[in-house]
Amino acid sequence: MAKKTTRNKPASKASSAPTPAKRESPWAHRDAKTGASLQKLADGVVKSALSGREPKFDVPTRAASNTKWNKSRGILQMGPATSSRELFNLGQARNFMQTLLHGQGIQALIAEGKTSSLRGMFYKSLHTIQGTKEKTFDDQTESDKVLEDIEVTLGALREELHVFAKKRGTMVGNITVIDSGDEINCRRMGSGGYAIPSICEPEVIQFKDVGADFILHVEKDTVWQRFNEDRFWETHNCILTEGSGQPTRGVRRMLHRLHKEHGLPVICLLDCDPWGHYIYSVIKQGSISLAFESERLAIPEARFLGIRAKDYEACDLSDDVQIVLNDRDIDRAKQIMAYPWFKEDRAWQREIKKMLDNGFKMEVESLITKDISYVTETYVPERLKAKDWLS
Amino acid sequence: MAKKTTRNKPASKASSAPTPAKRESPWAHRDAKTGASLQKLADGVVKSALSGREPKFDVPTRAASNTKWNKSRGILQMGPATSSRELFNLGQARNFMQTLLHGQGIQALIAEGKTSSLRGMFYKSLHTIQGTKEKTFDDQTESDKVLEDIEVTLGALREELHVFAKKRGTMVGNITVIDSGDEINCRRMGSGGYAIPSICEPEVIQFKDVGADFILHVEKDTVWQRFNEDRFWETHNCILTEGSGQPTRGVRRMLHRLHKEHGLPVICLLDCDPWGHYIYSVIKQGSISLAFESERLAIPEARFLGIRAKDYEACDLSDDVQIVLNDRDIDRAKQIMAYPWFKEDRAWQREIKKMLDNGFKMEVESLITKDISYVTETYVPERLKAKDWLS
Repeated sequence: MAKKTTRNKPASKASSAPTPAKRESPWAHRDAKTGASLQKLADGVVKSALSGREPKFDVPTRAASNTKWNKSRGILQMGPATSSRELFNLGQARNFMQTLLHGQGIQALIAEGKTSSLRGMFYKSLHTIQGTKEKTFDDQTESDKVLEDIEVTLGALREELHVFAKKRGTMVGNITVIDSGDEINCRRMGSGGYAIPSICEPEVIQFKDVGADFILHVEKDTVWQRFNEDRFWETHNCILTEGSGQPTRGVRRMLHRLHKEHGLPVICLLDCDPWGHYIYSVIKQGSISLAFESERLAIPEARFLGIRAKDYEACDLSDDVQIVLNDRDIDRAKQIMAYPWFKEDRAWQREIKKMLDNGFKMEVESLITKDISYVTETYVPERLKAKDWLS
Repeated sequence: MAKKTTRNKPASKASSAPTPAKRESPWAHRDAKTGASLQKLADGVVKSALSGREPKFDVPTRAASNTKWNKSRGILQMGPATSSRELFNLGQARNFMQTLLHGQGIQALIAEGKTSSLRGMFYKSLHTIQGTKEKTFDDQTESDKVLEDIEVTLGALREELHVFAKKRGTMVGNITVIDSGDEINCRRMGSGGYAIPSICEPEVIQFKDVGADFILHVEKDTVWQRFNEDRFWETHNCILTEGSGQPTRGVRRMLHRLHKEHGLPVICLLDCDPWGHYIYSVIKQGSISLAFESERLAIPEARFLGIRAKDYEACDLSDDVQIVLNDRDIDRAKQIMAYPWFKEDRAWQREIKKMLDNGFKMEVESLITKDISYVTETYVPERLKAKDWLS
């Protein structure tokens, strides 16, 4: 530890880092609205109780049956169905109480100007009900569902409830991101990259010097590393993102905002398998469980560049790239084919049918069998130039 | 897309980003050594074949039986045992060929100055053996093992083989990291943070302005977010890292280098469960499967700050924080208790025994039941001040 005494404090420290006490919540203006909505919910319950009526409230139904495909807008939307949460209904009393409990927890977070993880919220509202051995929540899954209920009921974003999920995904490219006041030059992020936060609302994230022409979004971090090492984002003037599988809401919101606010096309490079197709589907028109969020997450103009089922012949690949489709893959592929937005799209019907006819799936990584940089130097550049993608 | 034409290219772009062609591999001086070792391995095989002897080579054994606990140094080390890979041995021929195949692949990577993921390496060396239906590898697990064999046989780091694993983990704090020539000010990384790369060798990562007094390493990104939001790294002048569970080699190497090169103590905040204890054990003295890497990864002076089994009473927690130990947890706890480095440590014996006596585990997140910032404002500061930790 001899070195410790000789270490210099960086000169920039004092000026660059604001003291914690002085930071004002960037959410202040949304907090008022969220707080008021929560208050209204609680007031309704109290009012009913005082006037001798049964305390209850309605929660929009988050299910396939209440999800509508808005063809003209190209996004999944939530329908009008709601279900009731009644205190004096044995099957609903528990959920009723849980909702109020989380409502209270969220009010506390707002009051303190802090955020909490989904796991944290579970613990925050967890206790044994007095005089019983009953816990308020059996597990986190129960808690997460109630938080989604509150989101849709209040029409508030999870971010507005001060709740965040696990962080995943990385970004580099021709853009500067301002995150909580810090300027992050994504052209100078080395081999590691900027970790995309779980909350990407304008209150915390702003953009500056957006010089990129488009976004290349890849499925996996290992593929992202290949593209970053080959400086693809520089030679092709783009932003390079990855979602480590199904992108989080944070990643989707980041892509969505860059697309909407800066007109950047979103080009996806995903595996040729039902999982890759599903990721694309979610990026493009949203998911059933988050249909109420489609407006701010879905990117109907997103493109699917590859891997394509035709690539086995088109790129003259060896049979080493083939991973045989199992029964679950085949079932899943057929389900995806039947999604309304794929069902009416001839190109997508052909694509999935071709994959089923092939009898195998293919991963982006398998292009390495051609050459290590085939994907960055040949495959993606050629497809981009030819605008050879599915939409 | 109207905005596209009016977008400004940032002025800094041309000067800040080197053109790809001009970049020289930072690995050049190591490459010569790795290439020579590979060549020697191949030469030995050829020589045997030409002189009519059986082609073979020896691979150090990576198993518990060949792992020694070096008590004085406080790290796990690999013993001297080796096992043979012989071409004319039915049980070894396949592995023999696979090793040479991957050796060839690595030579190609070195020649091109590129890196590849473990998955990429699998595909790179995957093919059907001519005239048969036999594939060179059944699956990636088989391929990964051969790559580890090559690491130990050559005494080369995986990084020197130009192979990287999945990236995970984030970092902020009072330090500037130079990653591939880019200066990353970890005091200005917003809510997202700097994504720790999978390769953290001095060739790609250097440190500058290390003003922090210590490193706080937390298990999960959600906990990290709480500490980052509360600006803990600033108020306590530290570096804040997370490994999203068991830290990758990249994260361990980053911690190790900061500890060794800058004398920064590494303080761990992990769950009070066998998994948390195991993470600590790996950070501290290495793992059996990577015992050959302990020298550059293990941090014998790492501290375990919490969560401690005593905290249930010490922090006056409610029973909501209790997660009952199942049989697997109990078995695992007993195994960990019997590790030589824990076996001779009375404090650790007491710690694990206390957890078993409690009959429950506890997560860091559960401290939220006290208060949302209890962990950042009370728990960790008090323990740090009292130096109340296990070592």
